[in-house]
Amino acid sequence: MHILVTGAAGMIGRKLAARLVKDGQLNGQKIDRLTLIDVAAPEKPAGFSGVVEVSTSDLSSAGAATRAIAGKPDVIFHLAGVVSGEAETDFEKGYRVNLDGTRALLEAIRAADYRPKVVFTSSIAVFGAPFPQSIPDEFHLTPLTSYGTQKSICELLLADYNRRSILDGIGIRLPTICVRPGKPNKAASGFFSGIIREPLAGQEALLPVSDSVRHTHASPRAAVGFLIHAAGLTREQLGPRINLAMPGVSCTVGEQIDALRRVAGDKVVARIRRAPDELVQRIVSGWAERLDAKRARDLGFKAEATFDDIIRAHVEDELGGKIAN
Amino acid sequence: MHILVTGAAGMIGRKLAARLVKDGQLNGQKIDRLTLIDVAAPEKPAGFSGVVEVSTSDLSSAGAATRAIAGKPDVIFHLAGVVSGEAETDFEKGYRVNLDGTRALLEAIRAADYRPKVVFTSSIAVFGAPFPQSIPDEFHLTPLTSYGTQKSICELLLADYNRRSILDGIGIRLPTICVRPGKPNKAASGFFSGIIREPLAGQEALLPVSDSVRHTHASPRAAVGFLIHAAGLTREQLGPRINLAMPGVSCTVGEQIDALRRVAGDKVVARIRRAPDELVQRIVSGWAERLDAKRARDLGFKAEATFDDIIRAHVEDELGGKIAN
Repeated sequence: MHILVTGAAGMIGRKLAARLVKDGQLNGQKIDRLTLIDVAAPEKPAGFSGVVEVSTSDLSSAGAATRAIAGKPDVIFHLAGVVSGEAETDFEKGYRVNLDGTRALLEAIRAADYRPKVVFTSSIAVFGAPFPQSIPDEFHLTPLTSYGTQKSICELLLADYNRRSILDGIGIRLPTICVRPGKPNKAASGFFSGIIREPLAGQEALLPVSDSVRHTHASPRAAVGFLIHAAGLTREQLGPRINLAMPGVSCTVGEQIDALRRVAGDKVVARIRRAPDELVQRIVSGWAERLDAKRARDLGFKAEATFDDIIRAHVEDELGGKIAN
Repeated sequence: MHILVTGAAGMIGRKLAARLVKDGQLNGQKIDRLTLIDVAAPEKPAGFSGVVEVSTSDLSSAGAATRAIAGKPDVIFHLAGVVSGEAETDFEKGYRVNLDGTRALLEAIRAADYRPKVVFTSSIAVFGAPFPQSIPDEFHLTPLTSYGTQKSICELLLADYNRRSILDGIGIRLPTICVRPGKPNKAASGFFSGIIREPLAGQEALLPVSDSVRHTHASPRAAVGFLIHAAGLTREQLGPRINLAMPGVSCTVGEQIDALRRVAGDKVVARIRRAPDELVQRIVSGWAERLDAKRARDLGFKAEATFDDIIRAHVEDELGGKIAN
């Protein structure tokens, strides 16, 4: 089996590549070839017995998508994209990369005249407030950002190409990925990870919103699990509605902190400093708090059961099991 | 006021142009300039005191959209598009005209750096079965045709350009327009008009589906009314959800026939011949039967109250008040 990962240098892309190498198979078939592309050079994952190709490529530039699928990969994990904040500040880049890049990939597949499985990472940013208490699977697409708009459009394109049997597609709407490893960033959502990651590493973290803010989270490990599971679902299992919200842990910031206390103790929690920021509070108030994700659960997608589990996954996967006391 | 109508040679486009000329004003402002474009040359409406420009133009061809808005029209009625059947059989043309053409128009507006009102004709084809008994305003976008996909994508683009204040947009999802004047066509929906239009003109009409089939209709006159009303709504009235389903008369084919009997008598109804067609029956069974259209009604959009009114509008507007007995 030949697998292509776009956006392979990103956080999820790297973890997905590592997981594929570790598993050595996908859907019961041996992986013998792995193509990893991104706008920045992806690393070659260690320990893979098959062929790995890595390349620097922007799918929205002429010919890039055709080259990317020249080897007719059986499964394409399409993760490439400009993130939310950048798509909002750079209108043209967002549309070029997130919309035109994806469309170029789909069109290249149509021209190549073969039918790969395409797993597309969408986002709960396809939804926009006002929301019901819990967002049902039938809730309409009302993105309030250009990023969410671009993801919604790609979902619609993917569904149409799927309906026409040009490809076997699935779009998975990821909740906020938490705990994100690495340095703090300026994303408005950054604090959801920061208030866990920094204290566990012995550092102070700022909390810009009130403890009552509710949001839905899944770990990077769960996100990779969603991708792998999505690749194994058949057209028959999915039916025509191929874009679906992934499950996650819906909890308040206060509950996140309680979980941190249970997992790591009071001393770690004491490293969270409340620093209310009205702008962040306002942005976050427009985000989805809770999703039914009933279809995804029925189809076997699994997220963590509790935020405690999300923290433990971070400690295991990123901290070698060690908490800074 | 300067008004641009794209798709001006189409059935609704011609009726809209005639109505604008008749009214002489829009939103209380005198219309002094009218630009009518289409891929086929639009006719100059008679009796207009201002300047009328007509031109043959395909918005998806290079530079066409920029030329179309060079005069900075205050209001743009964007009706241009490839119809449902053609978008399904000609994949590339559908995406080029319906998606790329619309995007070119939006991008031309962004580049021109002014803020027109853009009224976009979408369609209830943005929805796909399975449906609830009546489709609520919050129902998700699940088109089952390339046409519906293209309309959905344009709605999302329009909403994002609106949110960024590049334009003041509104997308109106038209129900099936009935009674369409003119010759019978091969559209699967053609019989909804045919079983009224042909008998009223003294001709036989074939009915390919059972009397129990339910669907939602609005007259061409009502559709023009929606467009005019849409142009008068403010950003504040609309809020962020600028794409909305229009009201219509939801009735069964049997109820359509009963209405025809009330308006035109048994002799006219006798010209309907039942000729079941499994393919048409199957296609139609995937269509929306009923829509809440609550938001549209609350915003003052008005459709006919009964199918009798729809038939009467046709007799008045197309037949000079005369029924062939």
